[in-house]
Amino acid sequence: MITIEVVLSPALLHLTKVKDTNVVVIDILRATSTICTAIHHGAIAVRAVASPAETLDLKSDNYLTAAERDGQKLEGFDMGNSPFECMEGRVEGKKIALTTTNGTKCIEAVANAGARNVFAGSFLNLEAMADYLAKDGAPVVMLCAGWKDSFNLEDTLFAGALIEAISQRGETFVDCDAALMSEDLYKIAKSDLVGYLKKSSHYRRLSHLHHEEDMVYCLQHSVFETITGLVETEMKKI
Amino acid sequence: MITIEVVLSPALLHLTKVKDTNVVVIDILRATSTICTAIHHGAIAVRAVASPAETLDLKSDNYLTAAERDGQKLEGFDMGNSPFECMEGRVEGKKIALTTTNGTKCIEAVANAGARNVFAGSFLNLEAMADYLAKDGAPVVMLCAGWKDSFNLEDTLFAGALIEAISQRGETFVDCDAALMSEDLYKIAKSDLVGYLKKSSHYRRLSHLHHEEDMVYCLQHSVFETITGLVETEMKKI
Repeated sequence: MITIEVVLSPALLHLTKVKDTNVVVIDILRATSTICTAIHHGAIAVRAVASPAETLDLKSDNYLTAAERDGQKLEGFDMGNSPFECMEGRVEGKKIALTTTNGTKCIEAVANAGARNVFAGSFLNLEAMADYLAKDGAPVVMLCAGWKDSFNLEDTLFAGALIEAISQRGETFVDCDAALMSEDLYKIAKSDLVGYLKKSSHYRRLSHLHHEEDMVYCLQHSVFETITGLVETEMKKI
Repeated sequence: MITIEVVLSPALLHLTKVKDTNVVVIDILRATSTICTAIHHGAIAVRAVASPAETLDLKSDNYLTAAERDGQKLEGFDMGNSPFECMEGRVEGKKIALTTTNGTKCIEAVANAGARNVFAGSFLNLEAMADYLAKDGAPVVMLCAGWKDSFNLEDTLFAGALIEAISQRGETFVDCDAALMSEDLYKIAKSDLVGYLKKSSHYRRLSHLHHEEDMVYCLQHSVFETITGLVETEMKKI
């Protein structure tokens, strides 16, 4: 029986025991979707970095530098935070240093908390992720990155989707209201995720920045099987 | 047009502007339901107090003392945190000093934040509360007390119910994912609130303590019209 908890904001992480659990960091729009995409498209590693300055420092170590703040690519970096920048061989065989508004901070926050594993969550490899977690059997903590510590819909919906997928593979134990809510919210939205999320604050924020294609891409269900997780200090293929 | 935001935990309150807003503090099971019940049944005032020791100190000022921790009445106090203790003339004409695990801390947290008003939220007077807020027109912040800073279902459902009721009275502006989620969750649960909440963590916690009657009472929709809000330092009839 797999115990599942959902943490709705990094600001609530201290309330949940992370040690020895499988943590899934969720920043669907777009950091963890982009990290999964980069690894699937042959990047050797993605290092989550706190600040743009630290990201630039890694340029000399042959990292591609990627930086996003408030939904926009920062000037002077090789990439922003779009999954499309990871395609067509652009990241193959490369290491990427990535800093984003929300998601990379979450990875950093749990990196040294004694978790059994830390994964990047995405709809893109949801079924493969559920297979892994169900087979492993350790308690699962889903950490929603949110938007600057505020609750958001898209990360919560992914948590609901992943709970559903794990439940289809074996018995789960959910004694967490955030997880129960996530499951029910996903039931409402699952038939048309893109349509449902059009009302969300971050969808509108990214639409203003012309990132609609990124969002539609990130909401695709299980288009590849590559699982991405933390190996020492970097996100790699598991 | 009334702007509405929902704060899912006191630990996220710092992310939301409270100044000049109508704050509705929500601890449905049971503090804010009990406060509304006490005022409706003729209590002069309810003072939210941080600690049991400070509550006892107010005994000499002719306060009834009420204290709850982890769902249970504390020894040595006149009352716990049950709405039924406020009926049959037991609180009429009396002042009550109340300390609880979650709700009273939220009232304290917003008491000096420059809010236009601070109300106690409850299903028991939901329609009257919506009338007041729609007529007043100021932005509304709904603060869910949760359980020791964690998200809970019952407070979120009340937020959704109150948003629905305000929306039925006039135009609202909701640019807050937590509010959008609350509305959708309430749509799922509204036809059978008690049934829906039986899966929640706090319902199960209170059931173990034999508080089922309290919960069924607190989930009744608009059984009185008395509105309770902060007047200087105490919750009183508005």
